[in-house]
Amino acid sequence: MSNTRYEPTRTGLLLVDPYNDFLAPEGKLWPYAKEVAESVNMLAHLRSIMDAVREVGTQVFFVPHHRWEPDDYEKWRHANPSQLAAARRQSFAKDSWGGTFHDDFQPQSGDVIIKEHWAQSGFANTDLDHQLKEHGIEKIVLIGMLANTCIESTGRYGMELGYHVTLVKDATAAFSQEAMHAAHHVNGPTFAHEILNTSEFVNRLGS
Amino acid sequence: MSNTRYEPTRTGLLLVDPYNDFLAPEGKLWPYAKEVAESVNMLAHLRSIMDAVREVGTQVFFVPHHRWEPDDYEKWRHANPSQLAAARRQSFAKDSWGGTFHDDFQPQSGDVIIKEHWAQSGFANTDLDHQLKEHGIEKIVLIGMLANTCIESTGRYGMELGYHVTLVKDATAAFSQEAMHAAHHVNGPTFAHEILNTSEFVNRLGS
Amino acid sequence: MSNTRYEPTRTGLLLVDPYNDFLAPEGKLWPYAKEVAESVNMLAHLRSIMDAVREVGTQVFFVPHHRWEPDDYEKWRHANPSQLAAARRQSFAKDSWGGTFHDDFQPQSGDVIIKEHWAQSGFANTDLDHQLKEHGIEKIVLIGMLANTCIESTGRYGMELGYHVTLVKDATAAFSQEAMHAAHHVNGPTFAHEILNTSEFVNRLGS
Amino acid sequence: MSNTRYEPTRTGLLLVDPYNDFLAPEGKLWPYAKEVAESVNMLAHLRSIMDAVREVGTQVFFVPHHRWEPDDYEKWRHANPSQLAAARRQSFAKDSWGGTFHDDFQPQSGDVIIKEHWAQSGFANTDLDHQLKEHGIEKIVLIGMLANTCIESTGRYGMELGYHVTLVKDATAAFSQEAMHAAHHVNGPTFAHEILNTSEFVNRLGS
Repeated sequence: MSNTRYEPTRTGLLLVDPYNDFLAPEGKLWPYAKEVAESVNMLAHLRSIMDAVREVGTQVFFVPHHRWEPDDYEKWRHANPSQLAAARRQSFAKDSWGGTFHDDFQPQSGDVIIKEHWAQSGFANTDLDHQLKEHGIEKIVLIGMLANTCIESTGRYGMELGYHVTLVKDATAAFSQEAMHAAHHVNGPTFAHEILNTSEFVNRLGS
Repeated sequence: MSNTRYEPTRTGLLLVDPYNDFLAPEGKLWPYAKEVAESVNMLAHLRSIMDAVREVGTQVFFVPHHRWEPDDYEKWRHANPSQLAAARRQSFAKDSWGGTFHDDFQPQSGDVIIKEHWAQSGFANTDLDHQLKEHGIEKIVLIGMLANTCIESTGRYGMELGYHVTLVKDATAAFSQEAMHAAHHVNGPTFAHEILNTSEFVNRLGS
Repeated sequence: MSNTRYEPTRTGLLLVDPYNDFLAPEGKLWPYAKEVAESVNMLAHLRSIMDAVREVGTQVFFVPHHRWEPDDYEKWRHANPSQLAAARRQSFAKDSWGGTFHDDFQPQSGDVIIKEHWAQSGFANTDLDHQLKEHGIEKIVLIGMLANTCIESTGRYGMELGYHVTLVKDATAAFSQEAMHAAHHVNGPTFAHEILNTSEFVNRLGS
Repeated sequence: MSNTRYEPTRTGLLLVDPYNDFLAPEGKLWPYAKEVAESVNMLAHLRSIMDAVREVGTQVFFVPHHRWEPDDYEKWRHANPSQLAAARRQSFAKDSWGGTFHDDFQPQSGDVIIKEHWAQSGFANTDLDHQLKEHGIEKIVLIGMLANTCIESTGRYGMELGYHVTLVKDATAAFSQEAMHAAHHVNGPTFAHEILNTSEFVNRLGS
């Protein structure tokens, strides 16, 4: 790995799916992620990254999953297993507390809210690539949920699109330690340009 | 998993990267894949799938990786670690034996050769989606190399694009058993619609 | 031109930008489109097409332009001239009457509302391609506003993506007769598969 | 129009379809384009732009149309009218003189050859967006053939993808003066950021 620096004008911080259902103790999916999230101290790291990027003026992009609605997937030919499970659980339901961003991760003026993604990649069927270009971004840093699904698919797509991709391995979580390991030690090294921990990333922020 | 059937007019068989460098004993990358490939009897399964799909008339798409050329990546800002490694090894070099399709997996008249992909996903920067639509394909079945990189990224993209995605877990390989396990037991179930073995898939071919 | 038929299960009716600002007498952009719209009797044709497709069960997709918000484009590097003009006029403003669908063209249960497009193509930065695939659509029929911008860019993209593209030349309008002519007699024939009038299209609906 | 400058490190010169069939007196399509091409002195302008961009070190991208092969489109569901016409004429036939780049517009070391496009847009089903990102390009300048088809579709796509788009109205041609007029005076102003003539563009090159 090289000694990449993250210039504020060319770096985009992508905060993926910071919903109450994922991050709050009463969230519908927190029980599945809790063990891994706590083992890496994820919430504290997410907070310290957000503080650091706002301090230096890195552009923040919220990359939200589709918020569930009652008739989702009814007429679809090929809804995938994760979408059908989310529909059964009503995860991130529209206009619900679970589908609201966590209090500690609220958008601020100037942040960009990307269109909701239907499955895993924040680039697929959204304006993420377009918004990154309109803001001059060349490097994307991925934090949030989940390491092996939305974070990984967004990272794989970002690399294919020509972006420099950074994973932050203690600012994400997964539903098992095995999935977390696969994301950062099996698959990440095949597509990501940097795989850092929070302190390494924060130290490389700024011009 | 449902009892999907694979109608010849709506199914596309995607054969990913069937190069000598990957599949032949003297290939540059065969030593890395050999253990896993032999443990699932991959070559025999690839052959039996190709025989079966040609028998029923399923459309075959070759999905080839970029063939290495001497000045690749020299002026690129963000070549990824796998691309730089491939350049050092000169994997799948253009006009070389290693960058030629294996004798047992040669295109036949009517097969479609997709444009070469630069990284992992056969959809990224190629005409794969377009060719699938022009042939009326709704279900894609992925076989070839490697389970957790090109096969997985092509599958993740295919799902986002609205295709029904099938993985065949003994008609692929990886550079470690851990990577193979991650592909079929950790990540595959989050995006694929079916994860079968060769005999299950062959039994569901036909109308 | 061939004698295409429009089977309900494989055809998608794409209603582009049916906002009050475009279609109602008090709309901000109606004065620019009025002359052409009235010369082809556009509103009556839009109504008769919607009645006809709902009668046979053709899937309807609403393809809406971005609704203006106060800070749009402020931080963008390359907003285009049409976007800057729309921002000055506040066309299709969010939560305004002008940015509401016209009373005669309201979504009904089962219709699909595509994500808003930022510029001209209903496919760019949206889930239109994905939703078409999930509904099994192979032919798209484009009606609404404007013939040489959003309709044409959506048609050009649709053709590149592998769809069969139909323009309906008296169910759209433009800001000049010259622009209307260019859409249907200069450019349309280079990319569209069919260019019909309303009665021809309605006669070919059904199985 | 603003007073855009074209910095060499952020500008890409896109030379579209510079085939003998389009540009040489014996080319299959030259007779259709001759009148317009000569009326704007196109060939001289193409040469002076290429000289100027090579002088300052602007990155050059060749954006070539699909070269015809005998079985093209045979199994396609939705080949468009232009593709079928090209197949009848065997335009830009593979390994033919007509499908070879014109002697005055040959690639030089360091130029990027984009994958061939199947229809009109140089971005569709190719690696153009990816290559532009890997070279840090933010502004694209389109020259070559034809003004209202490949040039216009590539420009419309480029704008949707977030690029700054420049048309050069005397470094292109069309099959009629009406098509040329539509490209630069009807449609171009709705999506392009600059529409210049050759001398204006050359004067703004450099840092």
